[in-house]
Amino acid sequence: MSLEGDRLLSELNGKLDAGDILAGPAVDERYRDDPDGKLGALPEIVLRPRDTEGVAIAMAACNRLGQPVVVQGGRTGLAGSARVQPGEIVLSLERMTGLGIPDREAATITVQAGATMQAVQEAADNAGLMFGVDIGARGSATVGGNIATNAGGIRVLRYGMYRAQVLGLEAVLADGSVLTSLKGLPKDNSGYDLNQLFIGTEGTLGVVTRAALRLHPKPLSEVNAFCALPSFEAAIALLGLLRQKLGPLLSAYEVNFAPLYDDMIPSMAAPAPLPAGSPVYVLTEIQGNEPDRDGERFAEVLMQAVEDGIVSDVVVSQSPREFHALWAVRESVNPFLFAMKGLIGVDVSLPLARMQAFLAQTETAIRAIDAGANIYVFGHLGDGNLHYQVRTVEPSAAYDIIYRGVAAAGGGVSAEHGIGLDKKRWLPLVRSDAELAAMRRLKTAFDPNNILNRGRVFDIAPPDPSA
Amino acid sequence: MSLEGDRLLSELNGKLDAGDILAGPAVDERYRDDPDGKLGALPEIVLRPRDTEGVAIAMAACNRLGQPVVVQGGRTGLAGSARVQPGEIVLSLERMTGLGIPDREAATITVQAGATMQAVQEAADNAGLMFGVDIGARGSATVGGNIATNAGGIRVLRYGMYRAQVLGLEAVLADGSVLTSLKGLPKDNSGYDLNQLFIGTEGTLGVVTRAALRLHPKPLSEVNAFCALPSFEAAIALLGLLRQKLGPLLSAYEVNFAPLYDDMIPSMAAPAPLPAGSPVYVLTEIQGNEPDRDGERFAEVLMQAVEDGIVSDVVVSQSPREFHALWAVRESVNPFLFAMKGLIGVDVSLPLARMQAFLAQTETAIRAIDAGANIYVFGHLGDGNLHYQVRTVEPSAAYDIIYRGVAAAGGGVSAEHGIGLDKKRWLPLVRSDAELAAMRRLKTAFDPNNILNRGRVFDIAPPDPSA
Repeated sequence: MSLEGDRLLSELNGKLDAGDILAGPAVDERYRDDPDGKLGALPEIVLRPRDTEGVAIAMAACNRLGQPVVVQGGRTGLAGSARVQPGEIVLSLERMTGLGIPDREAATITVQAGATMQAVQEAADNAGLMFGVDIGARGSATVGGNIATNAGGIRVLRYGMYRAQVLGLEAVLADGSVLTSLKGLPKDNSGYDLNQLFIGTEGTLGVVTRAALRLHPKPLSEVNAFCALPSFEAAIALLGLLRQKLGPLLSAYEVNFAPLYDDMIPSMAAPAPLPAGSPVYVLTEIQGNEPDRDGERFAEVLMQAVEDGIVSDVVVSQSPREFHALWAVRESVNPFLFAMKGLIGVDVSLPLARMQAFLAQTETAIRAIDAGANIYVFGHLGDGNLHYQVRTVEPSAAYDIIYRGVAAAGGGVSAEHGIGLDKKRWLPLVRSDAELAAMRRLKTAFDPNNILNRGRVFDIAPPDPSA
Repeated sequence: MSLEGDRLLSELNGKLDAGDILAGPAVDERYRDDPDGKLGALPEIVLRPRDTEGVAIAMAACNRLGQPVVVQGGRTGLAGSARVQPGEIVLSLERMTGLGIPDREAATITVQAGATMQAVQEAADNAGLMFGVDIGARGSATVGGNIATNAGGIRVLRYGMYRAQVLGLEAVLADGSVLTSLKGLPKDNSGYDLNQLFIGTEGTLGVVTRAALRLHPKPLSEVNAFCALPSFEAAIALLGLLRQKLGPLLSAYEVNFAPLYDDMIPSMAAPAPLPAGSPVYVLTEIQGNEPDRDGERFAEVLMQAVEDGIVSDVVVSQSPREFHALWAVRESVNPFLFAMKGLIGVDVSLPLARMQAFLAQTETAIRAIDAGANIYVFGHLGDGNLHYQVRTVEPSAAYDIIYRGVAAAGGGVSAEHGIGLDKKRWLPLVRSDAELAAMRRLKTAFDPNNILNRGRVFDIAPPDPSA
């Protein structure tokens, strides 16, 4: 144990239960896990409080000692925010998984930050309600991590980002003080909305400990369809048509560009719903309240799209089994890509009007440096969010091409995964010096000793020469 | 002209156009206007820049001199945020009314902060789109003021608060630095979302100069209905039924409690749509995409509500004329109340589960101090937001009863009007010391000289004895 570690343990002695502290050999390798495979440092100490008070005690002690802390939820983040850096101890929310009973009338639920997204979804479902955000990592990603990254996923089109689900938060600041704003009111302008400070700031301004979340009425019908389209323009036209004809029923619009679908078919567990060979595939979904009619109406609009030539082939789900089978096609993308060695992946947002030009220019530029590169693009077209993957012998140059292309198109270098450690070198491409200075102003105001998720999103620059 | 005024004019000399500055006798009385009739001070100087650069020059000069500034938009705020205090100069956005051309595909528009809400609504409408927020003061309230108060209004149920409409902002900080985040991407987590700093913070952290706003597809049908209900419980039951049967089509659910409707009928321009005498009236609206069918479907659900005994009488609009006539009933509330001398009014939010008890207890407590008090309550029931008015000989005691009742029920002392100067004494009833300290931390980080909308929302306490 280092001197710093000993100091922290003695500072916490008698304040936290022994069971809340793992130290030295008791620290498991799992705290180094990272979905990108970039192993973090093995922390000397892991604090695992069971409640907000424990988090407050832990933070106050670390703040007194200037001890850097990295916060961990489900450790499934894709930007390295939770990856342990040398000298950091871990504050894990893994034992704070409590779920309140949903309030059916107000359509809210209050949960601890270590609860998984799936646990929230199931609690909502059991109360006849629905949680509006869904992502592939639902089984491991936690509420706290979802809030820290302002998670997006497949139904942003209808329900908004995670920010839109947050009616109240409790958070512990770096100095251990506790902000509790858990009334869960849908409309409240009684002073600053401090919740916003902790959403999408990747744990750098405070540790979220509890959240009051918005739930929605459970739709009475869900129907999806898988479509083959002749072009990018057709995908934009279909989105417009569905919005116009179905209005608020439209709940997902996921795109998959060639050759991704063709290449993944052999690895799919189930038969392909449509033949390979189209330039674009779209999975779209509606959620409605007229089970006898919604599917038929959806099919009519899609048939019109076929007649208009913007859809070349389509299959509409006719049963819950078919509905889940079509979603399984969408969920087959990640295992297919994750199994591929040497793939780089980014999560970018683009103005719809400039997306097609971005795709063409980026592919040309990548092929100019590596003619044999594989390019796989899918994402949430309705939100302008693409997940762009490249297998290339020139990964560093490819990153540069993609991010510079995104910046030139007026896009963002992270749509829903966050910046963390792994993307911060590209952040200045899309945010001005004045914006970065304002972020540092916030960080300094709320964590003057820079102990909390230090170096995530940005560094406090210029570096202090005396440090 | 005071010494301070002279200093500011000389500081601005050659930096702002003479036409951007009104001083001394050129300052019009209108800058003292306040919808509550509490006249502000007459400012010595009014700065009226035409662009962001002008706002930045004005703020930088005021910051150097420690000159307090109050920001004015449409001067229709209901909490005194824009009311001039002695020693303040006015920064008016009244000449920054520019509107960009709506982007139809992305459904966005970029506007200057001095544009009115109605101008935004009309620009959207002309492009075949719709803006999601509507309030009674649409013709005067500006985008900047709407953002500063996180405006709500009649369609929060469907489209969310103003915060949900903001895709990007440009703001000038107290020191004159400019933050421009106007990409208008629906999904972007590339670093902190600094826009959130300026939404609902009543101009205390920066001056919003431009905004990229979300628009929505224009609904193909709009139908409303005016209902008489036998009880508060029935109003809650009808809301649940409409949500369950109509899901996302439901776009407004406005309530009006006895004796408000009965008392306002004589002052209404048009005939009353339903007879007086019911305990509760509700105006509800749907927006759909099937003009041939939506009205009929809405009427079927309302007929079921009549059969179930939760609605005692109902009129459903059958034409655009009838649609507007029913909304006119809702809009008659404000003129009726504003014409009443000595009325006090508050804008509170409450958990739905505790609203009925709050109403009963508050009325009992008010009648105990003034048996002849008139109590008029209406509001946005779907959001838990009530506008509560009392005509009483004991206004100060009545405020206290209402706000303490709200706090005890877990509610908020401002749902959509903000805190400003007029409600800050009640803010500590609903926000903890830790929350107020965090608000002050933010204010100090972004306006260290405390020149911008000073004393709005909260005071920087304890007061600095050296100041």
